[in-house]
Amino acid sequence: MSETTSLRGKKRTHTCGELRAKDINEVVTLNGWVDGRRDLGGVIFIDLRDRYGKTQVVFAPQHNENVYQTAKRLRNEDVIAIVGKVERRPDGTENKSLPTGEIEILGDDLVILNEAETPPFPIEDEIETSEDLRLKYRFLDLRRHQMQSNLLTRHKMAQAARKYLDSLNFMEIETPFLMKSTPEGARDYLVPSRIHHGKFYALPQSPQTYKQILMVSGFDRYFQIVKCFRDEDLRADRQPEFTQIDIEMSFVLEEDIYDMAEGLIKALFKEAKGIDIKTPLPRLKYDEAMTKYGSDKPDLRFGLEIHNVTDILKGSQFKVFETGLEAGNLICGINLQKQAGISRKQIDELTDLAKSCGAAGLVYFKVTPEALESPTAKYFSAEQLKGLRESFKAENGDLILIITQPRRQIYPTLGQFRLEVAKKFGLIDESKIALLWVTEFPLFEWSEEERRFAAMHHPFTSPKEEDVATLDQGIEEHKKKKRWTIENPIGNAHARAYDLVLNGNEIAGGSIRIFQPELQQKMFSCLGISEHEAKTKFGFLLDAFKYGAPPHGGIAFGFDRLIMLFTGSKSIRDVIAFPKTSSAMSLMDDAPSEVSREQLMELHLKVI
Amino acid sequence: MSETTSLRGKKRTHTCGELRAKDINEVVTLNGWVDGRRDLGGVIFIDLRDRYGKTQVVFAPQHNENVYQTAKRLRNEDVIAIVGKVERRPDGTENKSLPTGEIEILGDDLVILNEAETPPFPIEDEIETSEDLRLKYRFLDLRRHQMQSNLLTRHKMAQAARKYLDSLNFMEIETPFLMKSTPEGARDYLVPSRIHHGKFYALPQSPQTYKQILMVSGFDRYFQIVKCFRDEDLRADRQPEFTQIDIEMSFVLEEDIYDMAEGLIKALFKEAKGIDIKTPLPRLKYDEAMTKYGSDKPDLRFGLEIHNVTDILKGSQFKVFETGLEAGNLICGINLQKQAGISRKQIDELTDLAKSCGAAGLVYFKVTPEALESPTAKYFSAEQLKGLRESFKAENGDLILIITQPRRQIYPTLGQFRLEVAKKFGLIDESKIALLWVTEFPLFEWSEEERRFAAMHHPFTSPKEEDVATLDQGIEEHKKKKRWTIENPIGNAHARAYDLVLNGNEIAGGSIRIFQPELQQKMFSCLGISEHEAKTKFGFLLDAFKYGAPPHGGIAFGFDRLIMLFTGSKSIRDVIAFPKTSSAMSLMDDAPSEVSREQLMELHLKVI
Repeated sequence: MSETTSLRGKKRTHTCGELRAKDINEVVTLNGWVDGRRDLGGVIFIDLRDRYGKTQVVFAPQHNENVYQTAKRLRNEDVIAIVGKVERRPDGTENKSLPTGEIEILGDDLVILNEAETPPFPIEDEIETSEDLRLKYRFLDLRRHQMQSNLLTRHKMAQAARKYLDSLNFMEIETPFLMKSTPEGARDYLVPSRIHHGKFYALPQSPQTYKQILMVSGFDRYFQIVKCFRDEDLRADRQPEFTQIDIEMSFVLEEDIYDMAEGLIKALFKEAKGIDIKTPLPRLKYDEAMTKYGSDKPDLRFGLEIHNVTDILKGSQFKVFETGLEAGNLICGINLQKQAGISRKQIDELTDLAKSCGAAGLVYFKVTPEALESPTAKYFSAEQLKGLRESFKAENGDLILIITQPRRQIYPTLGQFRLEVAKKFGLIDESKIALLWVTEFPLFEWSEEERRFAAMHHPFTSPKEEDVATLDQGIEEHKKKKRWTIENPIGNAHARAYDLVLNGNEIAGGSIRIFQPELQQKMFSCLGISEHEAKTKFGFLLDAFKYGAPPHGGIAFGFDRLIMLFTGSKSIRDVIAFPKTSSAMSLMDDAPSEVSREQLMELHLKVI
Repeated sequence: MSETTSLRGKKRTHTCGELRAKDINEVVTLNGWVDGRRDLGGVIFIDLRDRYGKTQVVFAPQHNENVYQTAKRLRNEDVIAIVGKVERRPDGTENKSLPTGEIEILGDDLVILNEAETPPFPIEDEIETSEDLRLKYRFLDLRRHQMQSNLLTRHKMAQAARKYLDSLNFMEIETPFLMKSTPEGARDYLVPSRIHHGKFYALPQSPQTYKQILMVSGFDRYFQIVKCFRDEDLRADRQPEFTQIDIEMSFVLEEDIYDMAEGLIKALFKEAKGIDIKTPLPRLKYDEAMTKYGSDKPDLRFGLEIHNVTDILKGSQFKVFETGLEAGNLICGINLQKQAGISRKQIDELTDLAKSCGAAGLVYFKVTPEALESPTAKYFSAEQLKGLRESFKAENGDLILIITQPRRQIYPTLGQFRLEVAKKFGLIDESKIALLWVTEFPLFEWSEEERRFAAMHHPFTSPKEEDVATLDQGIEEHKKKKRWTIENPIGNAHARAYDLVLNGNEIAGGSIRIFQPELQQKMFSCLGISEHEAKTKFGFLLDAFKYGAPPHGGIAFGFDRLIMLFTGSKSIRDVIAFPKTSSAMSLMDDAPSEVSREQLMELHLKVI
């Protein structure tokens, strides 16, 4: 039983993190949790903990017998108030790892405000317990220093982002959570209306349409740190509700978005990590990112660039390559520097790795002063081998790794292989920060299933200015052929779309939007969206566009992932106070749960 | 047709609000909306508008014939880019009401970026149009200066609130939107789960349980500016989704919450209105607020205090009062100063007003040097009339207005009457700011229907320390009588609950919470909540409380209403970018709407 129902008279004068040598002889009151108790030679020591730190409190029977007896009852995680004098710790017992380590408090009074049951896991940083248990007892998991520190970083980053954007005249404007469901919104969370029988709201997958509406309304610079919702089959690092720093600007070109976003990321690095990021950041066009790194979010903390050696190796005696080339394959590879000395077993492991990334096999060449050594070397001419050496800028001791695959597959395969090889050989310098823009994404991607093009970003993404004509050509060709083919010129059109990449992670993405009805109509034609369909799907946005939409563009940062990267956490669940599991459940409160028949009746719904 | 698909080469060098006399002779590019066009003597003037202001642009044929011809085509709300030299306006044509009124731009180049259809209402501050039309064309409504200004105030207040709370070590922590529905949550919006057949999430009516969990986790100081949801039959000034500044603190007493909240309201007044609020704010206990002002959110911008004259008037010849007194009625009234001269017709109007507030009738006394004049005066003794005069501190020319009603009704009736009288007689000084705390609310309210007590605030609100014993007595009495009665002593228990009131509006409310399982159990007993029921309803919070909950308390500000009051808006819809109507519809995007059978199938739901 706790001994009082109120804190009155026992309210802390200091936090558990602030007392120092200068406070010695002061009488203080502290409130907090018992972080540990040690009985040493008839004296009880406890560490008293709160969000701000820990302070050692000593209870000695010769000083105060009553209080000593109460202290004997203390258990970990009890909530207590103590009163006592700040004293210097005896020589040699200072704790230099603790900011309060020079002092301790001689306990004169002790009130147990609340008792605690034994926690299912210790409140410590490194704990060996299942994540499920941590999530069920999230209120205890969040007491651990690492989790408190993660959420403090999150808080600081949110404030820093707002401060930066506010200083640039951005306005934070709240967009609705109860919005219209679109026919395409298969991943919308729906919310049944009680008042309107049989009708539903949808939770926003993003405030995209609203932020564009705000530009039409003339707000010029909008931002919001906002929850978004997506009911998708969950992957390990996705959450049904996630947070975005959502930004939109009017009367801008790509450069303006880049400048603003670089300033933001600079501010965040400074605030959260005290690191000065050099801007402007490097930029890489999508096509180059793919052919050089096999990824639209390349990790530039290491090299291992992809080299296309198709032209060099064509016409060899090597059947595998020749058969591939006839089918239109490419031959590409990477140079794994200074690893020519690896064992046969390691070569086999590399081959397995390549296969797990999608390659059919792996050809290697060990670079020596005299030759490129490989079981397959005999199939290539001296000139080809020389060409290889030059193309890969190979030096003695390097290991060239080559695969062949169709053009559409070889880059993603090598992109993944490149990453895995870097991990396996420890080529990633974790202290490096590699930020870059990937720009000029393709406007469309071909859907083999639907035999037509889909928008790679979204249907409001503007084509590059010079590709407006490409759209005209493509629509013309479609009219003639009466169908879409993968060869249609619009397949080569590029978008005014961009992603911001940090160490191989997409941390933000956006685009300059289409703002004119005529161009929007062309875009819809390319996507095979009829006027009726467009009206149903995007009605109010298209209406708004009739009344004078300004040129505009924007970007959205994935806030959870950003904090995960900034805090070095392994999962976004570690930077969210109350996350869902990968099957979208909350283990702490048992959501989702069944509801009463009455509740469903009121909503005119029946579970089938 | 617009003339380009990109802003490239025509991006603004300045906004429409920033050019001044010092910029004369500079060549500038502006982007914006055509706010109005005037053709004067072969010269075209337009006002170019953006969020930052308006700038006059002149197109003269003698200066540039081509551009002049294009300018002739311009219509209101077209989006354009213009290039030209800044010139001083001719003497006598300056516009002093415009910050840019000293200059104009001589148009040298003009590009129509986007054409606009004629808006359904003019983009002006005072418009005569239905609110429905404004909501349907919200993207145009939001172009109006008043709306932009409201949302700018909203943005500034949100930033100021965050800055203030951050400076006090509060952490902004995001709580989930997809949470567990409680059996009591009849006003919960439900969200069906696709993955978990037949199960539902609920949208939070407030983050109450989560913020208490965060205190259990030791976060010490939490805040969030957060959307909340309530599916209720809507009143004119309620929204299904609304925004709250939600705050919780550990190891605090009421004083700490008052201090913090007063600092916040001070910061908001300073930021939004440049006004210095004097603190500490006055406090009024609930009981006193009710007997003095007939309201738990009294408007203190005017007097008209309620006086209880039951004791003075008892034993009169006036049947109405005597009959009432026998039934346990009170007799109370207000002194409407200096209105003794009003006409019979106005007296009748006051009587009707009193009746519309719930009174059966109204007794009045006109105060003259000689007497209290009234048709009923003859029923009262000279001493009674003298007592009346003294009790109301009545002076010559005052008008005393009195009613009789049962104790539970008379104060609310007079509270409402007091307000209506103040409005009718213009007693409210709109320039005044009357802030106060109403404290020590009753812990329970009696439910006649259910014949038991309900929590006035919520079941986690702590009783006053001295009323813990009252709960014990009440539970004992309930055990003996085997039922709850309105006379049970717990009816007199007071809570550690408080509201912050601004000019008669509740702008924030909160309480010190129960933090100990034993006291919580007593509270549940008083509310007739069984252990099983408590577990189902509040399970995870009660679990959390077993592991050492600190003393804590908090408060929540109604952010929408606060901004409405700060901007002097008539409706909260005017301070929300995309509000719902009073029937919870969005007229712009037509939400809620029907969804496809396929979507419902995926959710295992059927509309009945």
